[in-house]
Amino acid sequence: MARTASLSGFPEWLPEERLVELHVLDTLRRVFELHGFSSIETRAVETVGQLLRKGEIDKEVYGLSRLQDDDGDSATGTATDTETGAARSHKGDPHALALHFDLTVPFARYVVENAGYLAFPFRRYQIQKVWRGERPQEGRAREFTQADIDIVGDGDLPFRYDVEIALVIAEALSALPIPAFLLRINNRKLAEGFYNGVGLTDTAGVLRSIDKLEKIGPAKVAELLKSELGATDEQAQSALKLASIRTEDTSFVEQVRALGVSNELLEEGLTELEQVIAAAVQRAPGKVVADLSIARGLDYYTGTVVETVLVGHEQLGSICSGGRYDALASKGNRKFPGVGLSIGVTRLVSRILSQDLAKATRSVPTAVLVALNSDDSWGAAQDVAAELRSRGIATEVAAKAEKFGKQIKFADRRGIPFVWFTDDDGKHQVKDIRSGEQVDADPATWAPAAEDLYVRVLKA
Amino acid sequence: MARTASLSGFPEWLPEERLVELHVLDTLRRVFELHGFSSIETRAVETVGQLLRKGEIDKEVYGLSRLQDDDGDSATGTATDTETGAARSHKGDPHALALHFDLTVPFARYVVENAGYLAFPFRRYQIQKVWRGERPQEGRAREFTQADIDIVGDGDLPFRYDVEIALVIAEALSALPIPAFLLRINNRKLAEGFYNGVGLTDTAGVLRSIDKLEKIGPAKVAELLKSELGATDEQAQSALKLASIRTEDTSFVEQVRALGVSNELLEEGLTELEQVIAAAVQRAPGKVVADLSIARGLDYYTGTVVETVLVGHEQLGSICSGGRYDALASKGNRKFPGVGLSIGVTRLVSRILSQDLAKATRSVPTAVLVALNSDDSWGAAQDVAAELRSRGIATEVAAKAEKFGKQIKFADRRGIPFVWFTDDDGKHQVKDIRSGEQVDADPATWAPAAEDLYVRVLKA
Repeated sequence: MARTASLSGFPEWLPEERLVELHVLDTLRRVFELHGFSSIETRAVETVGQLLRKGEIDKEVYGLSRLQDDDGDSATGTATDTETGAARSHKGDPHALALHFDLTVPFARYVVENAGYLAFPFRRYQIQKVWRGERPQEGRAREFTQADIDIVGDGDLPFRYDVEIALVIAEALSALPIPAFLLRINNRKLAEGFYNGVGLTDTAGVLRSIDKLEKIGPAKVAELLKSELGATDEQAQSALKLASIRTEDTSFVEQVRALGVSNELLEEGLTELEQVIAAAVQRAPGKVVADLSIARGLDYYTGTVVETVLVGHEQLGSICSGGRYDALASKGNRKFPGVGLSIGVTRLVSRILSQDLAKATRSVPTAVLVALNSDDSWGAAQDVAAELRSRGIATEVAAKAEKFGKQIKFADRRGIPFVWFTDDDGKHQVKDIRSGEQVDADPATWAPAAEDLYVRVLKA
Repeated sequence: MARTASLSGFPEWLPEERLVELHVLDTLRRVFELHGFSSIETRAVETVGQLLRKGEIDKEVYGLSRLQDDDGDSATGTATDTETGAARSHKGDPHALALHFDLTVPFARYVVENAGYLAFPFRRYQIQKVWRGERPQEGRAREFTQADIDIVGDGDLPFRYDVEIALVIAEALSALPIPAFLLRINNRKLAEGFYNGVGLTDTAGVLRSIDKLEKIGPAKVAELLKSELGATDEQAQSALKLASIRTEDTSFVEQVRALGVSNELLEEGLTELEQVIAAAVQRAPGKVVADLSIARGLDYYTGTVVETVLVGHEQLGSICSGGRYDALASKGNRKFPGVGLSIGVTRLVSRILSQDLAKATRSVPTAVLVALNSDDSWGAAQDVAAELRSRGIATEVAAKAEKFGKQIKFADRRGIPFVWFTDDDGKHQVKDIRSGEQVDADPATWAPAAEDLYVRVLKA
């Protein structure tokens, strides 16, 4: 199964691999819906202006243009009217179309556009593909599926939702056939307040440097802070000390206080992060740590920030990230603060498949193949199949009345566990082709064992 | 709910509308899996060369290029190595990337690439978005979801699968909350054989003209046949007579024979179509007609062809089309003939929503809101919620201990039918806020009535 994608960065699964992915998607959906999140999808396409709205983006975006439009025919190619069917050239045109690179920016746009139709706080999950034109490598594709949950308020959003969303994600990840994971949580207010408290005011700059900690190490980060942000040695050391704090409980609060920095925003951040960690210690023990090195680069977060590692697979990168964003969506004076987390489904599924962490119990949905006695028995075989299907048993009918041995081989090759036979007198039998056991059966009542009814996906 | 999409041709649903779409998608998936079809997805992106492989395409294709690459930097913009992360300019470059416009062409490519890993005849369903840069109008979007089933053989594929796939689609469509539908089925061999029999050899040309029958009427089609294909008046009239045949049973065979044309391919086509219609009369009565006007334009079909109308909504266009294609996929001398049908999910869902043909029983997955007695009771409320969820009851917890009236109003506004109360002594009660009835309840055993457990989608 070690196949190479025919287009690098655009993975495609074989049917039995897709069963694993479907299991992951179905599981996430079930958990999200149990917690009252509504499904939505947004279009794959945003205007370039929308994607660049938050200023700097560090994602590689795919622009769109109509193939039949290469000559730049002004009637359809550069018109300003979206009714004309044109995808304009994206060269600097904010109305040009591009594929979305995440689900948060499109969701923010959706909330603003549909605010009049939504009940706030609005809870939604969104499972869709996103595209980034980055250099592909393990764990980083150009087309991949994200599964996001967000809660967005109208005007304000109680902090409690930050706690809740972390717990929901911990529950969702726990339901997947993956190794142990760890949510590493920090708070932007805590970081910004602390930096300000020691006299470092370029928060974005400090975060950008701290974000490189795992890649380049503390000594080089200190150098960056000094050379790029003019930090003193003492300031740099303070920032690094803060980033080195990591606790499984709320003891990080005392550790931060011991650094002797006093700042109002810092206190606010400490209180918030303390609430998240206290709830997690109780409700998701061992799955969450306070990790004050988490920065989340250039993103739009304003409070809680989260990254998640798969224990033993740390080099895969974060499998679930997100946080609180108070200013991503607004409509005039009306603000829609939100908090959300995004699971990298393709990254997880790729890892599950490449390391055989889980497997489908069979390769097709079919439980039963109805064999043909003669070519004329196709109609009768369809009747048997219809009866089985009416009771939820996935069934297909052979297309040719080959020798039974050949029909059994066909089922075996497709991974179908049962073959159904009806003789000329209408007597029915069903064979479990794994054990060879063959028994009399009635299409109106026979059922496979529960574990054979549907494909299941089992953790290795 | 009469909203306008913010980008014309890119529809987005509100959460309660999405529930209708989800119901349609879940229903199709269930039927397809019951018939043994495996799920696959292909990447959204194909090379332009792949999309144009069958020569002429009449679809408007969206090409891709990296936004950060506008200056045509040769290191990443026009390299021939797909490893560089580049989406090349699509100007005449067959390796450039574009969004797929249907799921059949990508599926054919997938089959050829993965032939070594698939068990043939390979049955798959594929539910994905596709994109076409066409002028949007009712029933025609630029981004829309298709749900396809196909069966593909290695070398050959018994004709019986043409019969089966029509029956599966009839069953799938019957399970949807839509009005009566009619599969209109024809056969390319029948048509080509007949045309050849009367001396018309440009089959594609005749089909293209016949395809316009509903739009421009028989007189103008006759003119076209004569002016563009050099048909005699008699030939044109023969072709029109054939196209006028439409029967609910196999009597079309006699009607065609009565036209007095004799041709081997015609006989083959008659036999094939007769088999499909005979099976449909028995197994899907009233849902299928032989309609010898069906042409399917420029597509790649070689035998059975199908279009489907929604009765009373004929102007919506075909909601499900497809047919037999013997030459779409090949690998050297190895051929992979297939037969498949594609349901226009977005077209159907748009119509269901715009005409209120079906509705979700509530607007959110949540069945129960656990109210807060005091701000400190959030943890206890989460315990109640967790217990309900463990038994499959979708539950959310209030974020603020507002007055109960306000919390009930909150549930009402979100469409949640039940509110759970726990008093300071730990006594539990649950209120059906629609009837006002409030009863004692145990979080370990209480359950809503079956019809309130999940959102259901009901036909109007």
